[in-house]
Amino acid sequence: MAIPWTRRLSIIHNTPLPRAQIARRFSSTSSQYQKLRVNPARLLSDLHHTCQWGTGARWGTAPTETGMSRLALSDADRKARDWFVETTKSLGCTITIDEMGSIFAVRPGRKTGAATFAGSHLDTQPSGGRYDGILGVLAGVEMLKVLNENKVETEYPVGVINWTNEEGARFPISMVASGVWADKTPLQTAHNLMEIGGKATQKSELQRIGYLGSTPASHKSMPIAAHFELHIEQGPILEQERRKIGVVLGAQSYRWYTVEVTGRDCHTGTTPLAARADAMLAASKMIVESNRIASSLSGLASTGVLTLTPGSVNTVPGTVRFSLDIRARQDDIVDAIEAEVKASFVQLAQPCSVEIQRDFTSPAIEFDKNCISCIHEAAQSLFTTRTEELTKEMVSGAGHDSVNTNYICPTAMIFIPCKEGVSHNPREYSEPEDCAIGADVLLNSILNYDKLRASKASS
Amino acid sequence: MAIPWTRRLSIIHNTPLPRAQIARRFSSTSSQYQKLRVNPARLLSDLHHTCQWGTGARWGTAPTETGMSRLALSDADRKARDWFVETTKSLGCTITIDEMGSIFAVRPGRKTGAATFAGSHLDTQPSGGRYDGILGVLAGVEMLKVLNENKVETEYPVGVINWTNEEGARFPISMVASGVWADKTPLQTAHNLMEIGGKATQKSELQRIGYLGSTPASHKSMPIAAHFELHIEQGPILEQERRKIGVVLGAQSYRWYTVEVTGRDCHTGTTPLAARADAMLAASKMIVESNRIASSLSGLASTGVLTLTPGSVNTVPGTVRFSLDIRARQDDIVDAIEAEVKASFVQLAQPCSVEIQRDFTSPAIEFDKNCISCIHEAAQSLFTTRTEELTKEMVSGAGHDSVNTNYICPTAMIFIPCKEGVSHNPREYSEPEDCAIGADVLLNSILNYDKLRASKASS
Ligand SMILES: [Zn+2]
Ligand SMILES: [Zn+2]
Repeated sequence: MAIPWTRRLSIIHNTPLPRAQIARRFSSTSSQYQKLRVNPARLLSDLHHTCQWGTGARWGTAPTETGMSRLALSDADRKARDWFVETTKSLGCTITIDEMGSIFAVRPGRKTGAATFAGSHLDTQPSGGRYDGILGVLAGVEMLKVLNENKVETEYPVGVINWTNEEGARFPISMVASGVWADKTPLQTAHNLMEIGGKATQKSELQRIGYLGSTPASHKSMPIAAHFELHIEQGPILEQERRKIGVVLGAQSYRWYTVEVTGRDCHTGTTPLAARADAMLAASKMIVESNRIASSLSGLASTGVLTLTPGSVNTVPGTVRFSLDIRARQDDIVDAIEAEVKASFVQLAQPCSVEIQRDFTSPAIEFDKNCISCIHEAAQSLFTTRTEELTKEMVSGAGHDSVNTNYICPTAMIFIPCKEGVSHNPREYSEPEDCAIGADVLLNSILNYDKLRASKASS
Repeated sequence: MAIPWTRRLSIIHNTPLPRAQIARRFSSTSSQYQKLRVNPARLLSDLHHTCQWGTGARWGTAPTETGMSRLALSDADRKARDWFVETTKSLGCTITIDEMGSIFAVRPGRKTGAATFAGSHLDTQPSGGRYDGILGVLAGVEMLKVLNENKVETEYPVGVINWTNEEGARFPISMVASGVWADKTPLQTAHNLMEIGGKATQKSELQRIGYLGSTPASHKSMPIAAHFELHIEQGPILEQERRKIGVVLGAQSYRWYTVEVTGRDCHTGTTPLAARADAMLAASKMIVESNRIASSLSGLASTGVLTLTPGSVNTVPGTVRFSLDIRARQDDIVDAIEAEVKASFVQLAQPCSVEIQRDFTSPAIEFDKNCISCIHEAAQSLFTTRTEELTKEMVSGAGHDSVNTNYICPTAMIFIPCKEGVSHNPREYSEPEDCAIGADVLLNSILNYDKLRASKASS
């Protein structure tokens, strides 16, 4: 498949860092491991090859300029899984499939023990792109190819995971298989999850496509030494700051609320402003104020859903319901935003009344310090003197399987820039060069962690 | 039918004005006309009798505690029309039905000429009440009964009009028959109007229920000397100020707009506030500001409809569309509010963009000075010394058939209080005492106007 990436190098992204220059610096380092780099053309070629299964909406004219629509456990997902199993087997891996259909491909090391994994997901949103999840798995496969062609023997096994149904788009729990693996979600709940708008369950679809494995979906049966995930940022920060690698320290704390404002329907022409209980006006004040409060505390506040009744041009709405999504680096900041929001909403509601219900809570996550160090070292050896300029420590705003594995095993994530921060959209795009840099850092982070394990074992 | 109104007198409304006291004052006036008063029990009995056709949702336990659902030209509307025609015929009226099905019942006077009419409508909203429109027609019928039992001979004919499809709920143009009569809406347009969610046209339904008259629907064929309309306020002002009669000077100027705010969809967790183009936040600021601007200029601003896309809790909406309804006493005030709103919206939109489209314009209406004087005199003769305390000059915030007749003939309206300003709702309610006071003022306003015509003709 023709890949336009080489043409784009240094042209589109206007970056001062052609990968060819890194290569020259790189080859001067001493360690055998640190000389290893991925084959960018092969990585992108494999990635786009797998996007033939579940190709989505077209947004450009080039063959690869389409989105993806590969819902979990669909026929397209089955074909991508089959490719993953065949490819990793042919690279010498042993395959384990668990009761949630997650696939663990393990390449043996010098010693036995749990593998250090690159993990992510091959499923997509119904109107998703070619990079979210897919890049993380394909970079893992590229890692296996690089290790093989360089005849590298790692200290311990290393491997690649494809987690089932990360998106939660078809069966509506996100990161569900890693959640079962981490004892957060009961297997029964996950198996019985009904398809949105259909009658299939997650278990019946696992059976239908032949991916209902026999290994218990649990860290006890399938231990992970460490979990590294390469992912697109899904936000605009790296691109805006012209950085290449996000070293992800953890995940934001976030909570979802439903706010219901109750006023009184009335005719827009016959009711003086002072006699109204205008639920839409009160809701508008609340949305503006929640944004101000979150901003003052370095957090985020967003309203993505709003409905009102009765919904007629000449009737002041008596009821407005809206969603509120509050996020911040730490749980106590979200606590503080929540407290200020609640107090202000009661004031702003007057003369309407307001009820605020918390629907969902996700505490802040801190990734493993050793894994983070391995990523920093990998970036350092790649970028040499420009590391500070080209990397950024950041927190993940979105959920990922790594948030679940982090409860059980050492975990960290690597972000690369994506165009305008767009994700969950056919136009989701990362430069081939940036995909390659991310895969280089993933590869070397895992090798660094492997060495770290060995040095700890011997000391 | 048992009417609870007598029980309610002075109890529920806590008013210092039992109608019995007015009666004593009233009987001391000299003119024969001014002694005339309606029979409250008969008025309410007739009103509730006609509400057997199209009875709506129940909200209380008493027989009359239901709303109404009498859509224009439905079978229920036909039965109410049949009652109106039979009753007014039996009271000695001649009946004219025009091509729009509007019914003109005329009681002869000493001289010939166009009649002075009490006009309103018998159709209701699908979820309407027992007073909006119905009271105005029934008070006209009660007027005929009072004139007959007192053997009053007016100078010129007087009469009662039932205008077809005032509400526009089934065939979606409000006040359509009075609009055709006033040359504002072409007959063809009105006839071809399709039923919402159905295949019938206004003409086919007029034919089906036997009310497609042969008289051209025009002021040229069916002239009106003056049009008086008694109506519930549909707002809270009279009730809040404990007044009994609104003397309506005209109707507000109003305009409808659609505002579309375009930002950029993004993930709520991965996009810093400074990097967002949050259409919902921008729209909220606009709604708050439009209210502030309207308030500062003694106008009204309301948002009754709002939709956003894509509509997911963890996606900042890229597009928000909302309705804006701006009203004020005069056109130039609406001009000023519109100008301020447009300028501020462009500012507040940043970094989103905004488009503001005007969908509908209804200029301010000034009712006829002579008709207004006749209403003032009628209220004066009823309330004697407390007139200022009990009446209020006001403007109509809602549309009425009187707004259309005012383009062609002298017109004015009389408002009475309604509970909590609620209308277009099954719970719409006016005290029987207030209905009777309104009917008294309607009766005497029409008699005053009849005398005025005679005095002008003889001078
Ligand atoms: Zn993902
Ligand atoms: Zn009405």
